[in-house]
Amino acid sequence: MLVTTLLPAVFHVDLTQYIRDIPDFPTPGILFRDITPLLHHPPAFRFAVDQMAEKFEGASLDAIVGIEARGFLFASPVAYKLGLPLVPARKPGKLPYETISVSYELEYGADSIEVHVDAIRPCSQVLIVDDLIATGGTLAATADLIERTGGKVVGIGAVVELSDLKGRDLLNGYSVESLLTY
Amino acid sequence: MLVTTLLPAVFHVDLTQYIRDIPDFPTPGILFRDITPLLHHPPAFRFAVDQMAEKFEGASLDAIVGIEARGFLFASPVAYKLGLPLVPARKPGKLPYETISVSYELEYGADSIEVHVDAIRPCSQVLIVDDLIATGGTLAATADLIERTGGKVVGIGAVVELSDLKGRDLLNGYSVESLLTY
Repeated sequence: MLVTTLLPAVFHVDLTQYIRDIPDFPTPGILFRDITPLLHHPPAFRFAVDQMAEKFEGASLDAIVGIEARGFLFASPVAYKLGLPLVPARKPGKLPYETISVSYELEYGADSIEVHVDAIRPCSQVLIVDDLIATGGTLAATADLIERTGGKVVGIGAVVELSDLKGRDLLNGYSVESLLTY
Repeated sequence: MLVTTLLPAVFHVDLTQYIRDIPDFPTPGILFRDITPLLHHPPAFRFAVDQMAEKFEGASLDAIVGIEARGFLFASPVAYKLGLPLVPARKPGKLPYETISVSYELEYGADSIEVHVDAIRPCSQVLIVDDLIATGGTLAATADLIERTGGKVVGIGAVVELSDLKGRDLLNGYSVESLLTY
């Protein structure tokens, strides 16, 4: 029998304490919000995962979609905690079975995101989880992808939201929740 | 208050039922073992995460290292369940803060793997988690990386092991556990 490490009951954690600012990453002029201190601190990580689940507790979820790669770090324990199917949304060429793909514009060039064609059951109520809402481009493309597979996007959850980039405007019409906003 | 979906107690799940064989991926002649059916099936996913944790229950773990990207899917809920720090090991250029890196040989060319310099506390007892043990190259490089940061690798855990590729030989000296072997 495994004895799980017992953490004290956590009522509230100020997650901003566990986000590190990195100037000029990945390019000069960008202030990157680094979530690794949050991952390193078990009560903060537990609080973030539990909060993400609680924010959508009324949504009758059928599946959790996690966006590669940092989104996997939060989507996976949310799916584990809630006992729901976990669906990885990945960059092109990474998923081995037949996929459905959506392309989207970046500031320079384009990118695309894929799921397996059998990943989402028809009419499934899906929560999309990522670490960050920036411009919202990847999240909007993933929502489009879920709908093309026949699923219904009932929520989009992220740990950090960069409000200056107005990702929430692009995700207009969806229930969007973030745990902290800059 | 969140009501977590209650799953029935799971005593044993035959995980091989949830691994899909994909011929000729990523290149002709390779039989790829696809873990996405396991992710889609909550009792199987829960069983896999819980088994991974149980296999190292005597190891006095201080941290879980997950290898990008599929390793994150298992390392993260193991860290969540055990209440341990989660350390992402990533491909070059992905981690924003100062990193330490180890390069390793591939069949054609080379690759490298990184962690943040402050990710592992000195003398920490570390479990490395990935989805797959193939040649063992990435896992051996990650173990070397953890030791260079001052940590001690007390275990290497994977869901699937491809025994023909003899990854376990390259990981000789480590406590290696996999949940299913081909």
